[in-house]
Order: sequence, then C-alpha cells, then structure tokens
Amino acid sequence: MSIYLQDIPLQEAQSRLDQALAAANLSGLLGIEDILLDENAVGRVLAEAIWAKISSPNYHAAAMDGYAIRSAETAGATLGNPIVLTCGQGSTKLQAFYVDTGDPLPGWADTVIPIEYVESLSFEGHVSKDIRNPQAIRIREAVAPWHHVRPVGEDIIASQLILPAGHTLRPVDLAAIASGGYSRIPVARRPLVAILPTGSELKPIGEPIEAGQIIEFNSIMLAGQVQQWGGLAVRYPITSDDFENIRNRIITAAKDSDLILINAGSSAGAEDYSAEVINSLGQVYVHGIAVRPGHPVILGMISHGLSGGELSKPVPIIGVPGYPVSTALTAEIFVEPLLSRWLGRPDDEPILMTAILTRKVTSPAGDDDYLRVMLGQVGDRLLATPLPRGAGLISSLMKADGISIIPGGTQGVPAGEKIEVRLYCSLTELTRTILAIGSHDLTLDLLAQFLAPYKRKFVSANVGSLGGLLALKRHEAHLAGSHLLNPASGEYNLSYIHQYLSGNSVIVIMLVKREQGLLVKPGNPKAIHSLVDLSRPDISFINRQRGAGTRVLLDYQLEKMAIPTNRVNGYDQEEYTHLAVAATIASGRADTGLGIAAAAEALGLDFVPLYQEPYHLIIPQEYYESKLLVPLFDILQDLDFHRKVSAMPGYDVSQMGDVVATISAK
Amino acid sequence: MSIYLQDIPLQEAQSRLDQALAAANLSGLLGIEDILLDENAVGRVLAEAIWAKISSPNYHAAAMDGYAIRSAETAGATLGNPIVLTCGQGSTKLQAFYVDTGDPLPGWADTVIPIEYVESLSFEGHVSKDIRNPQAIRIREAVAPWHHVRPVGEDIIASQLILPAGHTLRPVDLAAIASGGYSRIPVARRPLVAILPTGSELKPIGEPIEAGQIIEFNSIMLAGQVQQWGGLAVRYPITSDDFENIRNRIITAAKDSDLILINAGSSAGAEDYSAEVINSLGQVYVHGIAVRPGHPVILGMISHGLSGGELSKPVPIIGVPGYPVSTALTAEIFVEPLLSRWLGRPDDEPILMTAILTRKVTSPAGDDDYLRVMLGQVGDRLLATPLPRGAGLISSLMKADGISIIPGGTQGVPAGEKIEVRLYCSLTELTRTILAIGSHDLTLDLLAQFLAPYKRKFVSANVGSLGGLLALKRHEAHLAGSHLLNPASGEYNLSYIHQYLSGNSVIVIMLVKREQGLLVKPGNPKAIHSLVDLSRPDISFINRQRGAGTRVLLDYQLEKMAIPTNRVNGYDQEEYTHLAVAATIASGRADTGLGIAAAAEALGLDFVPLYQEPYHLIIPQEYYESKLLVPLFDILQDLDFHRKVSAMPGYDVSQMGDVVATISAK
Repeated sequence: MSIYLQDIPLQEAQSRLDQALAAANLSGLLGIEDILLDENAVGRVLAEAIWAKISSPNYHAAAMDGYAIRSAETAGATLGNPIVLTCGQGSTKLQAFYVDTGDPLPGWADTVIPIEYVESLSFEGHVSKDIRNPQAIRIREAVAPWHHVRPVGEDIIASQLILPAGHTLRPVDLAAIASGGYSRIPVARRPLVAILPTGSELKPIGEPIEAGQIIEFNSIMLAGQVQQWGGLAVRYPITSDDFENIRNRIITAAKDSDLILINAGSSAGAEDYSAEVINSLGQVYVHGIAVRPGHPVILGMISHGLSGGELSKPVPIIGVPGYPVSTALTAEIFVEPLLSRWLGRPDDEPILMTAILTRKVTSPAGDDDYLRVMLGQVGDRLLATPLPRGAGLISSLMKADGISIIPGGTQGVPAGEKIEVRLYCSLTELTRTILAIGSHDLTLDLLAQFLAPYKRKFVSANVGSLGGLLALKRHEAHLAGSHLLNPASGEYNLSYIHQYLSGNSVIVIMLVKREQGLLVKPGNPKAIHSLVDLSRPDISFINRQRGAGTRVLLDYQLEKMAIPTNRVNGYDQEEYTHLAVAATIASGRADTGLGIAAAAEALGLDFVPLYQEPYHLIIPQEYYESKLLVPLFDILQDLDFHRKVSAMPGYDVSQMGDVVATISAK
Repeated sequence: MSIYLQDIPLQEAQSRLDQALAAANLSGLLGIEDILLDENAVGRVLAEAIWAKISSPNYHAAAMDGYAIRSAETAGATLGNPIVLTCGQGSTKLQAFYVDTGDPLPGWADTVIPIEYVESLSFEGHVSKDIRNPQAIRIREAVAPWHHVRPVGEDIIASQLILPAGHTLRPVDLAAIASGGYSRIPVARRPLVAILPTGSELKPIGEPIEAGQIIEFNSIMLAGQVQQWGGLAVRYPITSDDFENIRNRIITAAKDSDLILINAGSSAGAEDYSAEVINSLGQVYVHGIAVRPGHPVILGMISHGLSGGELSKPVPIIGVPGYPVSTALTAEIFVEPLLSRWLGRPDDEPILMTAILTRKVTSPAGDDDYLRVMLGQVGDRLLATPLPRGAGLISSLMKADGISIIPGGTQGVPAGEKIEVRLYCSLTELTRTILAIGSHDLTLDLLAQFLAPYKRKFVSANVGSLGGLLALKRHEAHLAGSHLLNPASGEYNLSYIHQYLSGNSVIVIMLVKREQGLLVKPGNPKAIHSLVDLSRPDISFINRQRGAGTRVLLDYQLEKMAIPTNRVNGYDQEEYTHLAVAATIASGRADTGLGIAAAAEALGLDFVPLYQEPYHLIIPQEYYESKLLVPLFDILQDLDFHRKVSAMPGYDVSQMGDVVATISAK
C-alpha cells in the first residue's frame, strides 16, 4: 500500500461525496417521524410546513372580566344620561351577560364592557355588590363594537403558515403549533450514526494505561458532536488494528446505521486498514484532503455486507483521522453538513468576525490550515492569538474561541494582519475575556477559576515577562504578568517598563512573592544543590525561553557565578512554562531546571529553594479603571483566594493586591 | 380578595426572591452528581474545577513513523559523510529502534528520525526494503534532540487546570477531561421543576375543544424552556380551579421538586386561587410585578405540607401568569436565572443590538414593557418592527427576532428612535432576513416556505400597499407588495410610485394576478352578489384598513356606483389582512368583506368574484441586485412554486416574475 495520500481540495472532496450521496438517493430527508407534540420535540426539525388547522382563539373571547353586550344598545349613553341593560333574570330580553376573561361571547353580543365601568343593579334598582348575577347594569358611556374582545383568529388564523419545513423547534414554537390545532408533528427522522473506534493502542476511558497506550476519548467527543447536531450516536467497542476485525465491525454497523464514522486508521501507514476495508465493501471516493489538521480523511460508501451480499441501502462512511483535533474538525467539516441535509435544516452558519493576528503564522503551502485562536477585545480591536498547532493538542481546541482558515497557497499570515475568524464562543463572551499575556505562574490558573463565577474568562498566553511587556506596548493585552530582575539595581520590572513602555500609563500590582529554585527528581538522586551543579557533565538541564523572567534570573546568576552557558548541558533546550519544565524533569528528559516550588510540587518533584522574587501584574491605566477588571481586584482581596494561593508551596501573599508603582505617561 | 395586584419593580421582586432563597439556604448548587464521562455529559455544568490527574501524552511519543535514536550519535553526519546506527539484531548496542507514530520512545532515545530520511540496511550492508526490521540504518544529517517527539505533557500537564467550575460541557471538553485522566466527572445536580397547569377551562393537547375552552400548551412550552436551561421538567395533569385541588397538587409536587411553577391562577380574579393557596402553605413575597406582559406574577415559598407538617426543605414557587407570552417571559425573567444559579453557571447573557424602531410604540407608564420586535438589516441599518402586543398572542413571540424593554416611566418610543434589542436569533440570521412590508397576499406565506431551504427568512409585515411604499421611502424594507389602483388610468402602482418614491430607482415585478371579490358565508345565505348589496341594512361588512390596496379598490368602486360609505354597515370596522377578513366572516362577526379567493377557500367561505388585479413586488434597485434576493427570483421561476400558487383559487401565474417596469431615479 502506498504511504502517499491524496491531497484533494475540500470543495472537490465535498462534491465527490455529494455526487455519491445523490447517486445513492441519500441527498435529502432520511424519513419523517410523526411525534407527540411535547417538550421532547424541542430541537427536532420540522419535516413539513405547519399550516394552522384551527384559529386561535377559536371563539370570540372576552379580554376582560365584564359584561358582554350589544354595542348598538349603548348609543347615546353619557355620564348624565346612563342606560340600563337587563341581565335577563325574569326579563324578556337578555342585554348583558357576565363574562370572565377568556369566556366566550354569547352569539348576540359584539362587545365587552369591563366591570369597573359598570354599576350592577339589584332587582329593586339599587346598586348591588353581586357583580356576577345582577338584575341589570347601568352604563354611562357608549361602547364601540369589538372592544375588550379577542376575536377569532386574533393570534393565529386557520390555514395560516405557522412555521416552514426545516425549522428547528424552540419551546415557543410548540405553543404556537398547539394553538394551530396539532397534537402530533412531522419531524425529520434522526440519522443514526455509528462511531467505530479502532486501534490496538486504544484503551477505554477509566482503564489504566501504559506507555504506548492511548485513552480512547474520540468516540465520546464524536458522539457528543453528533447528538448536538441532531443525530443519534451509537458508540461501538474498540476494534483492534486487524483487517478482518475492522471489516466485520463495519459490516455489523452498516446494518443499522445511516452513517459510519471510523476513527482512525484512515491514514496510509502499515496499520491503517480503513481504506482497504472500505474498498473491499464498497468504494473510496476521497483519501486525503488538502486540509490541516485533518489531512488523512476517507470519504466512501459501504454497499456490500457479509459474503458480498448487496445492502438494501448503501451507507456512507467517513474515515476520521485519529489525532483529536483532526477528529473534531473532520466532524465539523463533513458530518455537521451531512446531518443538516438529512434533517432538512439549513447548515450551521458560524458567526464570522474580523480579528487582528497577534503573532505571525506560517502555513503548509497547498493545504487549507485550520488555525485555532484565542480572541480578546482590547480597546477597540479584536485580537486573535494563535494557539499551538499540533493535531494532537486537544487543549488547543478546547481553549479556542474561534478558528481561522488560512487558505492553501498562502505561505502564512504576518502579525498585525486581519484574519476572518469563525466564532466558537458567543459575542458576549468575547467582551468579558481578560487577556493576560506574559510570564507564567500557577496563581493565574487559580485566578481563572475564581473569575469564572464573575462572568470573566481569564485567558493567559505564556510568552515570558518581556513578551508580555511588548504585548502591552502593542496594545494586545489587558495586563501582563512579569518578574524581570534589573541586575544593576536588584529591583524588578520598573526599569523594563520605563524602557519598553515609555509613554504609557501603567499600574504595577503585586500578585504574589514566590520562591525560585531548582526542580529535581524526587529524593534529588543527583545531589543538585546550586546553579554550580549545572556545569557538571552528568547533569542535563532544561531551560526557559529567552525573555522569560526566569531566564533573565538564570543568566544573571550564571554570569555572577562565572559559569559559561555552554558548560550547561541542555541550555539550548527551552520550555515556555514552569509546569512544562517540571514535566520535562518528571519524564526523565532532563535532571533539573530553574522554576517555582509550586510547579515542583504539582508534578511530585523535589525543590531546592534559591531566590525569592515578586511577581507583578502590569496593567495599563485604561484597563486598570475598566469594569472588565473589577472582579480581578476583588479576588486579589479575597481571603479565600489568599488561602488557596498560600496552600501552594513557596508563595507569600502578604502583599497581594498592593499597588507597587503608578507610572504616568510623560 | 382584592382585585388589585401589587406593582413591584422587577429588581425589587428579584431581590425579595433572592433573600428568601438565601434564608432557605437555596442560593447555590443543589447538589453534586458524579457522572460517567460520556456523550451524555454534554450540556452538564461542572460542579468543581477539573485539574489534570495525568499528563497527555503521558509518555514521550513518536510524532512520525521512523527510528528512535540518540541525537548525540548523529553529530557530524552529512550527505557525504553518513553515519550508520545499528538496530540491535545481533549487535551489542541498540542505536536505532523502529517506531510508529504514537509509539513510546525507548528510555535511551531522545529524538526520532522519520523513515523518509533514512536508508534501511540489510545484514550485508545493502539497502533493504524491510523498514521495520533492518539490521542498521544510514543517516546523512545530524538530528537535534527531541525532534518529531511529542514529549510528556505536550498537550496537558498533570496538575494543570483543564476547566473551571461552572463551565458548561461541550464535546471537545469531554476529550480534554478524559486526557487529564478522568472517567467520571462532578457536575451540578439538575434542578427538578414541577409544572402545574391549573384552570377549569383548560383541555389537554389533542382533545377537542369547545367555545370557552383553551388548549393547554403552556406546560409544554415551560417544560421545553426548563430542559433547555438544564433543569428536569415534570408536567402534572391539569388541576381545576378549586382551592383544595390546587392545594393538594402543590403539596404533592413540593415533595419531589426543587421549584414549582403554577400556571395560571396567579392574578387576583374570583377563580385565581394561587396566592391564597401559597399563603396557606408558606409565604407570598411578591404578587404583581411592574412588567408587561407578565404583570400578575407570584413569587413565594412552600414550607408546609400535608396537615401543616413542615417540609424538610422549603420549595420556591412561582405563580406564572396564563397568557402564553406572559408565561414564556416570566420563565425567562425568573426561572432561567434561578436554574443558572442552582447549576453554578453564569446567567444566560443575551446578545444586545441597537436597532431603529420603525413604528411608534406607546407604553403603559410605570411598568417595564417587553416589546417583541422583528429585525431586519436594510442597507446599513438594523430595523426593529414592533409585533402585536397582546399577551395572548403567542405568534408574536414565535415571530420575534428579539425583545426590547421599554423602561417603566417612559410614555413610549417614537418611530426612528434607537432601541436596544436582546436577540432571540443569531446574528447570521439577521443578515439573511428579507423584510417585506406592504400588502398582504397568501402567496407570501408560500414564498416564505420556499425560501427557507435557501437560508432566507422571509418576514412580511402587513401594513397595506401604501404603507409598504412609505416603508420603502424610509428605507425600512427590502421590498413591498402592492396593488394600488389608479382610478384615473386603471393602471396599478406606477402613479403611486412616482408620487411617493420619486428619486428612488425601483423595479416592479409581477408576483401574481389574482381575483378580488366578496367573501361570504358558505352557501351565500344572504344572497350577496355585488357591492350594491353592501348598502342593504341586513348586511354587515368588514373593511380593510386605509391605505390597503383592497380598500382603495372598494372606495373607488363604491364611488363609481354612488354608494355612500355611511350606508355600509361595518365600513369603519377594519382588519389588516385578507385572512383576518375571512376569519371575521367565518366567525359570524360580519356577513361579507372584499378580499381574495384564496382567503375565502382557506376558511371554508364562498367567494363572489368581481375583479382581477395584478399584485406587484416593488423592489429598490440596490436590493434587486443584492445577493440577499437572488433565491427569491429563482423561486419566482420555479415551476413547483407556480404549481403551488396556481393550486390556490383565483391566482394566475402566467406573468409571475416578469419585470413590469424599471423606474430610474431622476
């Protein structure tokens, strides 16, 4: 089997699938279900237009508590010249009849006068308190016809269109349809989607995993997507990478499904059987699309079952790539539109926004590139910060506020360029996102957790302290976390602010004081006690990236100790966060790294404390005074927050929230 | 019992409820459920923050198919000076090991070289095809450490915050949580909401109704809302208007519910027992809020059960007014925020848009007025057209694209003013709404139905032909339907366009030719044969409003026949649509009216044909050429549409879609 996939443009791939569906008579509704009109109909899609069978109201109804009368009989009534209408008891002619709101008007009446405009009279002609059964009523004004009456069809007239086919039902629609005389409604049958996880390395959620094994969660994500899009998902057990097993599983699934999603084995490696199996049971139309992530997609059709027998109805099958980001995007690209079509509703149309890209992205020429971005409104600009690109990084999709498609053929997009973003979140969410760019500290995660109930989404991008200051300079963040040591003065951040943010008014707030030191394996097996040990040939180090406060600290201390950086093994291996440094050591990739105590504890490492440093929040004055940040300052005063931060090792919250400096633009 | 309700400002009402909830310890989560991590978790709300228990990947994984090697051993390799690494078979030292994508790296390796950059060698040193089990590999470039490797924690690092508490789970979140080592997740327990329909006039959906009876559909709408907002709804059978019955029903519901919605009986009429019952079982905090529709709301708490025994946990109860618009809005105002709080998630935040009001609205001073509006983007302005205001008109809520709150204390809002609208629809829907204002014709309903699959929402406001032209003049519609007869020339619309739209370029399109005539009761019992009969004293007429094309036609013909309008009984009774005229006759309110044949047929009336007239679409040139209207012109050429229109009586489609006139701005 070739290891080369096709590279078919998305539109061409879509159109091959569409043609195959049309040929198989699978381009429209799969069927119509006649369901009960109740709350479970919410979210279902009307298969036919609903025309009112009856009017609502379907009788002339009193719109007030009062008396049904003939308007003509009130002609000439005035304050001084009242008219008396008999209520029928003992009289020959019924002229007024008590009605509660909603009661039907007697056939002879053409208007209602509310009780508050009427005097009820007893048999003797006295004013009576019995408003429901008076002998007569006295009226002191003429009444127009059809006042205080809800005439037949005021709301809905029989034969009127209530809702068109293809409409997705909301609670209010159920009421309107019921008003129109329906008790059952025709809705599109839900497509049955079989989800087939395959792969010998997969383990079901909840089972322990070893190196080389992967937790199988794609099927759950796919099932969630399918259900959200109106389909019915059936998850099958994991199938091992074996041609016959996969073939049998597909044959089984094809019997009861409208669509099969096989995940993964859709690439062209030695253990990728999907395409071969599909070809043996039907046809592959597309194998490989010009989209990343999500390149190794298969679009095909199963037309034969066991022992080659032809199926009564062919079943489309999508080979969904296995990296989770590819899995989710492939479903968005192919499954959602297919389900929409089978349900007879318009495609899901994303909200598109124009945003400014904060960092350059390069793009694999030729393929459409689905770039995940975080969005934040800073001042009057909507900013898009690219998230890590790997197809295996499900966290990048989870954090994404939107996605931008960098079209194939371009080499990438420079920073500062406008890009179009399809929103994953609501517009309202965008306006309440706090964008923090700069240094990384574990307190920021806690801050995000505390801010959530205040309807603030706290998004932090870790680019190091200096990167944060530069982001503020470019007006790309609401605040920056920073701990940049000035080696000359021993003071933190202020000299850098003067250098990089001159002309800006900023407020410097103490978030926390924290210990920096060496993270080492549990028990410190290599006996690392100071930076001097970094020059030992048996020690491998993991560094932070240039511009990080921790890197500045390291370089300063190495210089002070006269340790040349080329003596430090791994000095050129960089990570972007304290946790990433800790993870590198925990996994054995390095013996030690400089970082904070909390990161060591989080990953079960030991910690050699060396320095204490302040970690500041640098906040431009306009955001310092904005409503957006109010909850943040509240939390910095919150004792529960102090307690939670103090519970992490190496943190001193005694000055948390203090204003360290106010720097005014000159 | 007093018939006067309180008139408590919304904020005060909310705060009384909040205090009562706080006192009853019902301000936060109702409980935490530990559920399986699968697709059914979508939509549930995290009760606790999720911190990663393991890293993902949790081993160093190959990111390509290739060989795991030590990077140091490739130092110095070049094209001309290759290096050979042994694969271990028979050799003493393992230097290269074949890995598939996703395989774990051996402990001694620190990088991966992809197969395509390698020559596999056989035992004899020849280039071999066995890429999986070669004797050795030849490398012609130096490889940096940790290339083509997904290191531990690349996606998620153990101890990292994955998602904060209060987050509503999406499919992608399930994958991220599973990656973090979870198989079960703590989510907020769903509030149990009992829905109690009460009213002796109510009949369940599906049962036949008589005059004075009402189909009970509010409970289904409420249940749909509750489920949409994350609660579990339990609908109870209809309870008749009887103090003891209602009391017993509430006692039963209180045993198993977190919240009771009693609908209706919340007003203060003779049969409104809700407040009295609640007082007998607990306390009423609010009875009547300063909001319309939705004034007669009760907010209370049930604290006692059968024979006065105290409940283990008090149960809040909301008396929800019975008019369906009031029902739905009361739920939005009080139930949604309460469920959000109990689920620990932020309130639903509506998208707010600024729109221009197209018609004046008056407001009951003192109360906040919830105005339903239709929205449409015409040119660069978002326009809000008020929908009918009655609390009984569920169709007004169904058609609403948004709601605008006219604050209490104002007298109303003049046309042309900016108002803030909370969207019910998506922003994308707004941009694909075709706003037709003008005359009414049944073909427009069919057009709406045909346009739906084209992702066009066709919204028609019936203000009569002249009203439509004036709306075009004010740039408040994309097109207007019109059939205005010029009595002098016998020609239609053109003279009116010259008079009212001078300076505008418009295109006049033939929609349909149709018959106008007299609508009469089945069998024509009063033998009405021409307009002359309208002057008979035994005939009552229902008229169309001034500015309607049909009214112009009537007035012209009456004048021609020298019939004075004051001889026509009911000449001053006006309806706004053909169907409303038909409904008025069908219900017995009038004997006849002038209108179209299709309306007669729709309501089972007989029709006396009198005139044929063209019904035109008047379209400003800028919209005539817009993408928005393309599908409309396609449909006017669609033979299936022609067939459907022809199937209605009195329609001639032979000229459908023809350009009648192109009028250019001078």
